[in-house]
Amino acid sequence: MSNPEDDATTPRVRAGVDQPSSLNPSWTPKLRRTNIQAEEYIRGILQGDRVRLSQAITLIESKQTQHQELAHTIIEGCLPHSGNSVRIGITGVPGVGKSTFIEALGQNVSSQGRKLAVLAIDPSSQISKGSILGDKTRMAKLSANPQVYIRPSAAGDSLGGVARKTRETVILCEAAGFDTLIIETVGVGQSEVAVHSMVDFFLLLLLPGAGDELQGIKRGIVEMADLVAVNKADGDNQQRAKRAAADYRNALHLFPPKSSNWEVQVLTCSALSGQGIAEIWHLIEEYCTFTKAKGFFQGQRQSQARYWLHETIQQFLQEQFYHHPQVATLLNERETEVLAQRKSPFHAAEELVKVFLGLEK
Amino acid sequence: MSNPEDDATTPRVRAGVDQPSSLNPSWTPKLRRTNIQAEEYIRGILQGDRVRLSQAITLIESKQTQHQELAHTIIEGCLPHSGNSVRIGITGVPGVGKSTFIEALGQNVSSQGRKLAVLAIDPSSQISKGSILGDKTRMAKLSANPQVYIRPSAAGDSLGGVARKTRETVILCEAAGFDTLIIETVGVGQSEVAVHSMVDFFLLLLLPGAGDELQGIKRGIVEMADLVAVNKADGDNQQRAKRAAADYRNALHLFPPKSSNWEVQVLTCSALSGQGIAEIWHLIEEYCTFTKAKGFFQGQRQSQARYWLHETIQQFLQEQFYHHPQVATLLNERETEVLAQRKSPFHAAEELVKVFLGLEK
Repeated sequence: MSNPEDDATTPRVRAGVDQPSSLNPSWTPKLRRTNIQAEEYIRGILQGDRVRLSQAITLIESKQTQHQELAHTIIEGCLPHSGNSVRIGITGVPGVGKSTFIEALGQNVSSQGRKLAVLAIDPSSQISKGSILGDKTRMAKLSANPQVYIRPSAAGDSLGGVARKTRETVILCEAAGFDTLIIETVGVGQSEVAVHSMVDFFLLLLLPGAGDELQGIKRGIVEMADLVAVNKADGDNQQRAKRAAADYRNALHLFPPKSSNWEVQVLTCSALSGQGIAEIWHLIEEYCTFTKAKGFFQGQRQSQARYWLHETIQQFLQEQFYHHPQVATLLNERETEVLAQRKSPFHAAEELVKVFLGLEK
Repeated sequence: MSNPEDDATTPRVRAGVDQPSSLNPSWTPKLRRTNIQAEEYIRGILQGDRVRLSQAITLIESKQTQHQELAHTIIEGCLPHSGNSVRIGITGVPGVGKSTFIEALGQNVSSQGRKLAVLAIDPSSQISKGSILGDKTRMAKLSANPQVYIRPSAAGDSLGGVARKTRETVILCEAAGFDTLIIETVGVGQSEVAVHSMVDFFLLLLLPGAGDELQGIKRGIVEMADLVAVNKADGDNQQRAKRAAADYRNALHLFPPKSSNWEVQVLTCSALSGQGIAEIWHLIEEYCTFTKAKGFFQGQRQSQARYWLHETIQQFLQEQFYHHPQVATLLNERETEVLAQRKSPFHAAEELVKVFLGLEK
């Protein structure tokens, strides 16, 4: 049986870095030395070995070609064993109490015998090389819970890259037996779209601040939510939280119905006191039953897989294009001409793509 | 001085088709016969020659390489003379009265001595090869107005293609002296985004049907509007229109402020009676003054040019990718494997892009 303390042996690797070999030199040579094959990883993961799981995730995060190839093989070995889970996305502006909420929900979930993995997509970690989940003290109880696995956000040079790594991590966690996945992100922009496209259920946490609150949150994010939870409904805030929930409920009527036909709920809760947390978990289970009965649950996962296939094709094409040496040189020149109204953006685009594909010198 | 009747000589060309040579055989041979050079086109357009303008637009719409090359040269000759205009996007669901509204606004605009060009982006014309503006009787007065030039939506095999052609048509119209551009589209989806990214001012037309109305309109479209006009505020509808306008005004408070700092207005109008039309034009002028004073107007046009450069690069890359014979063969196979959970979407994407770029057999 694995122990949560096992993870503590590879803390710097778990912080999610692009070049683990340079940050954690002790580990990669060990990998080479023991020449562990993909089969061993897969067997370890399927047996719920967390050290093996953590190491495999580090391979996913690595930029080294040999690591990536090994990771592909491991993932494809785990894929047939993945999927038996509920994937929950959680977002909200900084200060809304996401960590405390995830602690409360996570403790509730694990007390029911479920195995929980908490992941994160944090675009800001691209800059800081840190992570919103880096500080384990943020979720002290969950970190000490043997049913729970916490993995900080991967770093990367693009949101697409970070999202890809997180989605592949989901596969490995599921193969390792985690049946409940929480993917956290901050409510500031594109990262929500990435999380939304890899989860079954999307939860938006809000503060009891009524309508003004929505100002800080992109409209599209509200539209993605399956549940809006007004957190910090404790003490003096209880009445304000109820009023805010009523306001949101009215506002949500203006939205088109969801393709799942699920009616978006608005609840109040207090991650601090635990009020409302059980109801929220109950609602998530209800959602799963509702959408599985109609085939929507599985259908959405298939659409998501298709989405990531085509989204990644686009990402790779653009990466290759913008890193092409000749294109990079010409691009600035063409952009200047476009902005000076000397060249049409379409003509400039056509010329650059031809250069990229070697159709023009 | 050009005459609106000139246009009547090339009605089928103006209907916007991809292969004008097959639909209007009399014209392309004439082009070849007389070997008109780009300079002649440019000179004609700058002199306000509408026949030349229409022919040049047809070149933009043509798929023949020689036409496209000629079009590029014409556009680049016109670019330095373009931009001195206000570009207005108008959208609204079918039945909201867009044609009548454009007639009313257009007559008002031209009565002030301005020269108006009306264009359209209509994704449905991709199927029908027709156009929402194909029926000139829809705008009988404007069609007969010598200050006004109406050009139906180009057809094309993608919205991106249609949008590109429309944006290049804007350049030619401006070079031909049109200082007011209206670009119409139907309120059903992506075409609004395309129109929004090529106009200075975006007007959303709604019916006096209160909140329910928003259901039919994508939330993002309301967010793009600089002005919401509740049309058909005549007869029995006047009170309902006022109530609807008040509702929208309240709903708009929930939206984040626009980057222009312009406060979105909600007005009622009747395209039929003419009530409110002058106010709307006045508001558009006010918007231009407001955003030009702050540099936002010009800044937005530069962002739009940059947007189209990178958007078109992406479009071209994808077109080339999905039309690549080897990729097309492999794609179905890989997609099946991804949906059957035998392959990760990311790994499949990587393999396909390598095949496309010739990095793998």
